Amino acid sequence: MKKNQTVKFRNKPRIVGSYSIVGPKEGKGNFASYFNYVMKDDSFGEDSYEKAEKKMFEHAIVGAIEDAHLQPDDVNLLLAGDLLNQIISSSYAARNFNYAYLGLFGACSTMAESLAVGASLIDGGLFDTIVCATGSHFSTAERQFRFPLELGNQRPPTSQWTVTGAGSCVLSNNGFGPRITMATFGKVIDWGINDVNDMGAAMAPAAMDTMLAHFRDTKTTPDDYDLIVTGDLGKLGSEILIDLMEDNGIKLGLNYNDCGQMYYTRNQNMLSGGSGCGCSATVLNSYIIDKLRKGELKRVLFMPTGALMSTTATQQGESIPGICHAVVIECDEENVDKYYKKVSTSTAYKTTKGNRKKGE
Amino acid sequence: MKKNQTVKFRNKPRIVGSYSIVGPKEGKGNFASYFNYVMKDDSFGEDSYEKAEKKMFEHAIVGAIEDAHLQPDDVNLLLAGDLLNQIISSSYAARNFNYAYLGLFGACSTMAESLAVGASLIDGGLFDTIVCATGSHFSTAERQFRFPLELGNQRPPTSQWTVTGAGSCVLSNNGFGPRITMATFGKVIDWGINDVNDMGAAMAPAAMDTMLAHFRDTKTTPDDYDLIVTGDLGKLGSEILIDLMEDNGIKLGLNYNDCGQMYYTRNQNMLSGGSGCGCSATVLNSYIIDKLRKGELKRVLFMPTGALMSTTATQQGESIPGICHAVVIECDEENVDKYYKKVSTSTAYKTTKGNRKKGE
Repeated sequence: MKKNQTVKFRNKPRIVGSYSIVGPKEGKGNFASYFNYVMKDDSFGEDSYEKAEKKMFEHAIVGAIEDAHLQPDDVNLLLAGDLLNQIISSSYAARNFNYAYLGLFGACSTMAESLAVGASLIDGGLFDTIVCATGSHFSTAERQFRFPLELGNQRPPTSQWTVTGAGSCVLSNNGFGPRITMATFGKVIDWGINDVNDMGAAMAPAAMDTMLAHFRDTKTTPDDYDLIVTGDLGKLGSEILIDLMEDNGIKLGLNYNDCGQMYYTRNQNMLSGGSGCGCSATVLNSYIIDKLRKGELKRVLFMPTGALMSTTATQQGESIPGICHAVVIECDEENVDKYYKKVSTSTAYKTTKGNRKKGE
Repeated sequence: MKKNQTVKFRNKPRIVGSYSIVGPKEGKGNFASYFNYVMKDDSFGEDSYEKAEKKMFEHAIVGAIEDAHLQPDDVNLLLAGDLLNQIISSSYAARNFNYAYLGLFGACSTMAESLAVGASLIDGGLFDTIVCATGSHFSTAERQFRFPLELGNQRPPTSQWTVTGAGSCVLSNNGFGPRITMATFGKVIDWGINDVNDMGAAMAPAAMDTMLAHFRDTKTTPDDYDLIVTGDLGKLGSEILIDLMEDNGIKLGLNYNDCGQMYYTRNQNMLSGGSGCGCSATVLNSYIIDKLRKGELKRVLFMPTGALMSTTATQQGESIPGICHAVVIECDEENVDKYYKKVSTSTAYKTTKGNRKKGE
């Protein structure tokens, strides 16, 4: 039996604020001009990379609330997750906010997981204003999942570079901004890939499974979206997804792309591309939301993927399960002009999206 | 401003099935006669404790669905989390079920986090049937968070014993069973405790914060509940909570207790008591739900607590943030007699709650 994995939101919660903060390498990538804040140095003034990651989360949360023109007290709930053991970046950042908090773990799919859960809670009338946040840091991920940086290990061609960056957005029933209209909740899919340097291949089957479920449940086709974007399949993984979808009779065209594949420039030579929770989170909360606000994108199928393994599981010979959640975000066509006006009238907006800041 | 952290569910989702599986030591504790399944050996026939933990999860999920008299295909969504890095017990167990999956991380508060999120999703009409699951294993937790078992470290008097066990329940809008009427979403609270052998003290302020928010938001008092039960504050932590509440003018009486404190018998000499996600999860899904089904408890305030630290955070000198979510579960008074009848008429029920099995 094919069960419905997709929910349609009656009240279509809005993304009323967003913020992205990235590291120096990301600030030289393809989305450079869209980010709110580029750190000069990826330690962000802290004495450990873990503390820097936590500080990025705090920065992103505050930034998104400011971008929404809300007061800190207007927020009811924080939904966050990250890649670190016991999601410490999220929980330790949450300590500094006077908000109820739900910790999530969906690896690099966390941005979609938080949007899907957040939109569900708002749609049901249980909460008014929810902040979603996630991110990652190259140096914390590398030493936790792979090798100490000091070893200077060589990277195989399938490997991806964990994005140093955090993204956050504010969901609300009020205000204006792009609307979350549907969410497809993904299953855990494991096709037996066990190469921890080839995450794209491990996650592509999960992306396929969720994409098929989404098109089936909603009776849509790829042509119904201006942009279909996976999270961090990278160059190889996104090609695998295109093949897998074609095997299922669905041709993904030029409106399909992958955040990881697009992230860095060719000259940066980042092998298979970007990865990490921060990859899709910072692309969503900069480029994608900007285009949706301005009406340059009308309807986006945002589907970050996550690889759910741990070093312990890998050491015990387990393969890598993947997951992918999909969220449909649509342009709020009636209010498109407000975003053009907003740039010229609002100071708060200017200091973020308007005048991109270069960091400390 | 004191914001409302509590949601009241209009549709009052029901707990229609539950299951608990525990290790041999737990099977000799105070709740022995209530558990569905006691493992003879805590490796559960697997070659690693992590794999045993995952198998307990699978067992608990299947058991709860059977207990609800549902078919596997009736379930829409699985909500799960655990203590292991990247919550592998949950995600790897989820691999074996054809369900959409949301990974949660709330440390030992996960049972309440999953109930609160699950009840919210059902209440909003987005899902019909959701399975919530969590658990822990003494041997996986000990070697991940503290020391290799082989070291034979001495345990200080404040230390607690991670419960080996998993609990799962099925939430639904249909059927009969105890109803989830309210949930209070907790904040991350950190009072600077940094002794990883004194989790009770680290989590007690979070329990206080959520309990105060709950009584304030709902205009209830401790007298409105037959049972107020925290998750794993243990002997010391629950005394701290009683003191903290008294400082706030609220006296907790004999209807307050803590799952960790109650778990083991005096003769088992488990120092400050039980802990871990499995502690409150197995008590809820055995003793508490049993009493609620039979009408021997009418209204329970279930509030598991979690300590959100990781070894990396501790090594970097961070203190231990705590969190506590509260869920109100009420007896379905119209259907109390069905549980007495069910024991004598249903085979499925007999093989679980009726005739407790002794494991492989």
